[in-house]
This record gives sequence, structure tokens and C-alpha cells, in this order.
Amino acid sequence: MGPAIRSKRTRRRRDALADREHSAPVEMPSRHGLPPAEVLTAEQIEDVHAYSTRLLEEVGIEFMLPAAWDILEANGAKVDRDSGMVKMDRGLVEHWVSKAPSTFDLKARESSRDISFGGKEIAYGSVASAPNALDAERRRTVGSQSSFRDLLKLSHTLSTCSFFSGYPVEPIDLPVNTRHLDCYADLLTLTDKPFRIYAIGETRVTDALDMVCLGHGINRDELREAPRLITNLNVNSPLRVDAPLLEGAMEMARNGQIVVVTPVAFSGAMTPITLSGTLIQFNAECLATIAFLQMVRAGAPVMYGTVFANVDMKSGAPILGSAEMSTGMIATGQLARRYGIPMRGFLGSSSKAPDAQAAYETMICLWANVLAGVHCVFHAHGLLDTGLIASYEKAVLDSDLIGMMQVVSPTVDFSDLDEAFDAIKTVGPGGHFLGADHTMARYKTAFHTPLLSDWRAYEFWESDGAKDTAVRATEKWKELLDSYVPPDLPAGRAEALEEFVIRRKQEIGDMDI
Amino acid sequence: MGPAIRSKRTRRRRDALADREHSAPVEMPSRHGLPPAEVLTAEQIEDVHAYSTRLLEEVGIEFMLPAAWDILEANGAKVDRDSGMVKMDRGLVEHWVSKAPSTFDLKARESSRDISFGGKEIAYGSVASAPNALDAERRRTVGSQSSFRDLLKLSHTLSTCSFFSGYPVEPIDLPVNTRHLDCYADLLTLTDKPFRIYAIGETRVTDALDMVCLGHGINRDELREAPRLITNLNVNSPLRVDAPLLEGAMEMARNGQIVVVTPVAFSGAMTPITLSGTLIQFNAECLATIAFLQMVRAGAPVMYGTVFANVDMKSGAPILGSAEMSTGMIATGQLARRYGIPMRGFLGSSSKAPDAQAAYETMICLWANVLAGVHCVFHAHGLLDTGLIASYEKAVLDSDLIGMMQVVSPTVDFSDLDEAFDAIKTVGPGGHFLGADHTMARYKTAFHTPLLSDWRAYEFWESDGAKDTAVRATEKWKELLDSYVPPDLPAGRAEALEEFVIRRKQEIGDMDI
Repeated sequence: MGPAIRSKRTRRRRDALADREHSAPVEMPSRHGLPPAEVLTAEQIEDVHAYSTRLLEEVGIEFMLPAAWDILEANGAKVDRDSGMVKMDRGLVEHWVSKAPSTFDLKARESSRDISFGGKEIAYGSVASAPNALDAERRRTVGSQSSFRDLLKLSHTLSTCSFFSGYPVEPIDLPVNTRHLDCYADLLTLTDKPFRIYAIGETRVTDALDMVCLGHGINRDELREAPRLITNLNVNSPLRVDAPLLEGAMEMARNGQIVVVTPVAFSGAMTPITLSGTLIQFNAECLATIAFLQMVRAGAPVMYGTVFANVDMKSGAPILGSAEMSTGMIATGQLARRYGIPMRGFLGSSSKAPDAQAAYETMICLWANVLAGVHCVFHAHGLLDTGLIASYEKAVLDSDLIGMMQVVSPTVDFSDLDEAFDAIKTVGPGGHFLGADHTMARYKTAFHTPLLSDWRAYEFWESDGAKDTAVRATEKWKELLDSYVPPDLPAGRAEALEEFVIRRKQEIGDMDI
Repeated sequence: MGPAIRSKRTRRRRDALADREHSAPVEMPSRHGLPPAEVLTAEQIEDVHAYSTRLLEEVGIEFMLPAAWDILEANGAKVDRDSGMVKMDRGLVEHWVSKAPSTFDLKARESSRDISFGGKEIAYGSVASAPNALDAERRRTVGSQSSFRDLLKLSHTLSTCSFFSGYPVEPIDLPVNTRHLDCYADLLTLTDKPFRIYAIGETRVTDALDMVCLGHGINRDELREAPRLITNLNVNSPLRVDAPLLEGAMEMARNGQIVVVTPVAFSGAMTPITLSGTLIQFNAECLATIAFLQMVRAGAPVMYGTVFANVDMKSGAPILGSAEMSTGMIATGQLARRYGIPMRGFLGSSSKAPDAQAAYETMICLWANVLAGVHCVFHAHGLLDTGLIASYEKAVLDSDLIGMMQVVSPTVDFSDLDEAFDAIKTVGPGGHFLGADHTMARYKTAFHTPLLSDWRAYEFWESDGAKDTAVRATEKWKELLDSYVPPDLPAGRAEALEEFVIRRKQEIGDMDI
């Protein structure tokens, strides 16, 4: 057994032990908690399909990139080159959408971190793209490389987090044109969990592709064989796809990397106020963009992405974690399954603090994701304030919510029925099971222990400072951040990445890329 | 139109308006959020039935009341009069359990408050039986008539609360032998929502039956025709039913009132540590007790009650709102439907404060109740500290969780598809729906507004005191309590109840009843 192998085993054991101490599930990504629910009838699903495709036939969708028009026209779409409006008939949409694969993997540097999409697993990611960080002591601060690295390390320690949905927080103190280089270097060295890149324009994507090859020790051909990066293309709803996002997504698709297509479906503002109307617009936007990406490269891995929300009709502000959203999420899950395309969900809250509102909004989202049958969940560790805040405390809180949800089982193990029967017979009326053999054989692993829940008697809790969940979450993230150990990295990789970053920074200089 | 009718209409309108101001759903009891989920296979359901009935055949269950033995023996059960152990064979259990009705109503003084059990509705009740009250200012105080009345009034104002699961808090300052008289007088005058009585011994039940007749203006024959009271019989798990509870439940059944049979199924302590073992013991206890109550009066309305929880294996303390419990609740829902008996659930938390833990534990319970297909939910407004605390803030918080859950819809309205299509066409790329006709026609009622959620921008929230959900809950319960208006009561009823209470207090005196 060579030293590399030994080191890997040792690390795995150390991780497993650390996980057990946190009492969070060791297995990642998680099982589905329960089978998907259904809120649309079979007829309604076909209604959505019919109205969505009619929308693309009669109204069309605006693609803001001329390079995309050529591909679309070459494949039979009608493009109005003055307005950028693209019309596709139903058959064309169906033809190309059917080429999207129904399962694929996102490979990590270590295969133990690989993620499968399209099966029964749900992979939960970190919070992403927040302009602000928040913790109990420093309060709200503008995102920086320091908080970016903190949140990277914190999510690396959380066993429920299996990938990074993006930069946990925007490091505003780094120059915008080379920020991606520093961030991807960190994402490839401070953690070995896979991550989502921001595919904004071709240059940034090319840099990311080069860097993941350096970090994973592979070449571009190997990269094209299996996805190691994921990105998100937000449709600028209603009915518009922006140029830099199209350019980036095309480059990702050409290289066989994963593109999540996510219309910003905020009912009442970016989509109609009714769920019915939201579903047809949302589905049209997904289908058109997915069809286009399949024209770029047939079989490119894509996902059907939802960030269902509605706006507060008093203020126009979007709300994450509203009750209405649950029904919409479950409905889009049915649509994703109709097309056989893996689905991306999200967790969110509009609360400004890691309080009861944060917990109930996130929990309603979480159940909606599970019952929608999603395959991956963006923003699942730390989002507050509708995405404007990445919270240290909330990252830990979310890990607990997810850990609890992973315990909700779709099946019940009946293998001990006879043993249990005998235990009941032996204990009998007036007895208790605390010391029964049947209990003693199982008590260590029987129940899940969340990170934050305080189950002690009131008097103990009070004499220990009457700490609410938010206060305990502060203690817990500090403890986790202290326990952070960087992942092993084969010799030379960090140096190669550093060289690359230095060279590219010189090349980019002050360019507006 | 007579004055009584006018007064009723006026009150209904006033209630409806008050409800709209609170933005909580007006309709009560609520619809099911989603159809029930399933975690047991059809074969496993029959396994539970087989092992449960075998348990009653081979081991039996202890009934601690000799008067019950006579009835059991007369109907074919085998009673060991030394130990009180009762054995029933499978056929006997099945015969009597099949006599339990699958639907019935709990009638209120006003028919608008009536509750149906066994259909698609879920009725959520108040917290009950807590020894302590908790609010942000007075902190934890021993329950008193003052906090009892406060919590009665507060739950009366909450539109999500359709009945009282018992005394919201125990008024410890009232003498224990006549406490029920004062409490039932309050429950019949300060609110017109139905309530659960404590059927502990025959005397208290008889008093309650007399008092509900006085309060509702009916006689004992009318009372026997349709239930107006509900009680809860906790099986003293494992396998024991206490004498005073049996005596009280028998008196309720004889009078056609509702008895909920609820084994205390705390896995690891009162039932086996595995869900499989818990299910067979729990089901055996339910079946035996329900069969017995059907022997007392065939067709007596009974419910299959669950308080699934597990104990913390470190301390032995029960935990309400654990993840494991969800699977158990859903499984018991399948059992209740197998027997065609309406099911009672619960909401709970082990948190000591109305914080994130309180919200996530209660939310996991709430989804479990909905997915279990329960018909009524005890302890749904205000429970903290595993039932040891009735919290003013938590009552409001729970109302919000329930209000949100009532919005999660099992179906989607597609009646506006053409209108929505036209709205999307009209708005087009780059537009928004905020001012669209389709939006304007619906925005007032489109989305649910919770009582406590703060959806404003961070800056507004911060300059307004950076209040977390718990602080906002304090403001809200004060506002609700201030808005409390007692329900109209026909002339003479309050006086009749007062006279009854005075007379009975004299009769009872210092007796130990």
C-alpha cells in the first residue's frame, strides 16, 4: 500500500470520525427523504407543455447573442435579427430537448466527492453570490476575500454540503476582472468539493476549464469526457436570455460541462401572478434554452432549474420561502420528470437574522425541494435576506435542517419485528425499554443528533446562559472553522494553479473581460 | 330577520374582517395541504396488524379498572383478575374495532365553529396542559388563572386555531378538585370554539357534560345525539391503561362524546427503540382500547392518536419534533386509514424559546402531520419545552406556520391559462408583470401574508430596531390580546353556568374527587 493510498484512507477515516462527532449523516449526497408529490394532473402537465411550446411558436424568446442566432437558424429556428426574437415550433423544441441526458455525474478531484444527478440522491450546495456576509459579532459586512475564505472553509467542514453553488459571498475587495482566478484557486485548494462557476463570457469559462484541469490533474480531453464543473444560466425573465450568459453557457456545453437553466420565476413581477401562468412561461424559457444548448452540443448535460418565489405585492420585493412557492416547486418537479431532465432547486429565506423566520421559510423550501424530487439544491447553507446575505450562523442552521430531512425515511426497516415483539413481551406493563437488550444493541446509532438542538431541561438551559439557537450557532461555526483541515492535494498542483493565476493576471491586466 | 340572526351575521362579518387583517386564512378547519404520503408497503401494514393482534392474544394489555373487566369478560375477552391483564383474540379485536365510525363532527355552540373529523380537513387546536406559561417579559411563570385566560383569549383570536386541545396552561392557583368547573366555565364563555375535557374519573366528566349542555342551551339527550366534547385517553405505555382515564373515557363513550386514544409512544423508553417495534406496540394499545370503548357503546366516536417522539438516548428526555418522528407519523397515518378511524396528531418542540429550533422542530412536525393525513392536531398553538411550556410568542408563531401550510395546495387552478398566455405575450421580453391587467385583477388576494414574516429591506428592518421573529411575536400577541372580543352568548347562559359552578363547588367542598 503506497503512501498516497494510506493518506487517502487516513483522511477518510478522520473525516468519518469528524462527521460522527458533528452527528451529521456521513453519506453524501443524501437520499431523497420521501418520494415526490404531485399537484398537477397528467392532463395539466400536457397543458403546460402545449401552452409553453405555443408561446415559443407564436411569441418567441429573445436571445441577445448574434453567435447564437447562427446556430439557431442552422437548426431550423426562425430568428428576427432586428429584435433577436427566436421562434421555434413544437416539433423542433421536442426534438432537441429529447437529446438532453437524464442522468450524469459531476466529478470531483476525489471520487468520494463525486455527485450523481438524475437518480434518487439530493446534493445540497453552499449559499452563493451574496454581496454581504453576516455573523453575530461583526454584523453585516460587505463580502471580502476573508469572509469568502471563511465561508468556504466552514462549508467544507459541513458534511451535509456536497458542493459549492458559487462563491459563498462575493469578495468585493478583489478586482472584478481577475476575481474569478483567485476564487477558483481557493475553490480548488481550500476544499475538494465540486463547485459551480460563473459562466459570464467565454474568457472566464476558459480560465475555469484550464484551472480545474490543473487542480484535478487531468487534460482538456479528459475534462470533456465527464463534467467537473457546473454553471447556472439565469433566464432574464420574461423571455430574454442575456449575451454574456449565453456565451459562457455555450462554452460550457461545447466542453461537456453542466449548465443549469434557471428562469427567474418571481410570480407577479417576472412571471404572471398565477401559478398556471408562471408554469407556462417558466417552462417555455427552460425548453427554449435547453433546446439551444443541445444544438450547441447534442447530449450536453443540462438541468431544469427552479427558484420559484413570489413578490410581496405591497413592495415588489421578492420573497424566498413563501408557502405558494412550495406548490410551484412540486409542479416543476413533475415537469422536469416529464422531460427526463435532472432538476435543480434552492433553499432560501427573506429573514435578516438566523431566527424563527429563517428556519420556517427555509424548512418550507426544504420540504418543497424534497417533495419536488430535485437532484441538487443551490444556496442550501447560509442564505438570508433573499440572497443578499451569506450568514455564518445560517450555514450551520441549514446543515441541521438538511441533516434532519435526511433522516426522514421513505421506507421502514421491519427486519427486527420478532426481536421487537420479544422486547415488548419482556418489558411488559409498567416497565420501560431504556435498559432492554433490544435497546442496548441499537441506542448508539438509533437517533440523529442535530448540531444545534438543545434538548436539556429548562433549568440546565437557563443556567447555561439561556442561549437561543442563533447564539448556539455562533459557538458552533467557530468550533467548526477552528476544526477546518485543508484537503490533501497532490504535490505540485497548488504551485501550478498559483503560476496560472499569476500569468493570467498579467495577461488580463486592466482589460474589461 | 330577528335580532339573534342579525347579531350572528354581524359577528361573522366582523370575524371575517378581523381574520383578513391578520392575513390568516378565514376558512376553518383547514384543507389538507397535500395528499398523505406512504412509507409502509401494503404488506408491512398487514404485518403491523398481525404482530399487534398477536401481542394482544399472547401478552395482553393491563386495564387497571375492575369495572372495565366486567365489560371485557362479558364480550369474550380473557381477564386475569389478579394482574388486570386482558387478552383478546384477533377476531374479537377486529369485530369491535370495525364498529368505530370513520367520520363524525364535533359540534360547537355556533355551527360555523363545528369541526368534521375523517374528511379532508385538518383542525388545529391550542397548546394544552402545560404547567408553565412563557412570554418575553415575565419569562417562565407557573400557570395561573390569569395566564390560562390570556392564552384562551389569544387562541380565540387566532383564525388558524379551531379548538382547545385542553387547558392551554394549568391554572395551578385554582384548587385541583374544583379547577375543572372554573376552567370549563371560561371555555364556554370566553370562547365559542369547541374544547377537549380532561376525563379523569366520572365526576369531572359528568360536570363537563352538564356544563356544555348549559353553555350550548341543549339537554343531555341532544348531547348524546352529536358530540360536543372531546377527550384524550393516554395509554400509559407500555401496555397499561390507568383506572381514572378508563372511568372517564367510559363515561364519555356512554354519552356519545369523542375519545382520542393516544399511546405515549416515545421510542427507546415507552416503546421499542425501532420504528417497527414502536408501531406494533402502539397499534396494539390503540386497538385494545378502541375495541374496549366500542364494547362500552358500539359506534362511539373514537380517534387514533399519535404523539410519536423518541427519547434522547444520552439523557432519556423525550424529544418532540425529531426527524425520526416524521416517518413514524406518516406510518401511523397509514394504519389509521387501514382501520378507517380518524387520526389525531400533534405539533411540538423541545426548544425553550420561540427561536429557530422551535420553528424547525414544529415545521418538521407540521409537514409530518399533513403527510400523515391527520384530521386534528393537538398542541398546535404555543407548545415549547416538550410540553412543559405554553408560550404566548409561540402561539403566534405556530399560527403562521399553520397559515403557510394551509396555502400549500394539493391542486393548481388552470382556469386562467388563456388569460395568462395573453399577459405573457403583452408584457414580452424586458417587461414586467407588476402593472399588467392580469396582475391588477388578482394582486390583492394572490399571496398569503404571514403575521410575523419581515420581508422589508435590511436597512428598514435594521432602523426599525433589527427585531427578530421572537420580538415581533411579542408585539403581535399583545396586539391580538388587545383586539380580543368575547363571543356573543345568548342571555342567561353565563348566569346558568355561574350558578352551576357555585353549587358544585359547595357540593364538592374539600372532597378528593
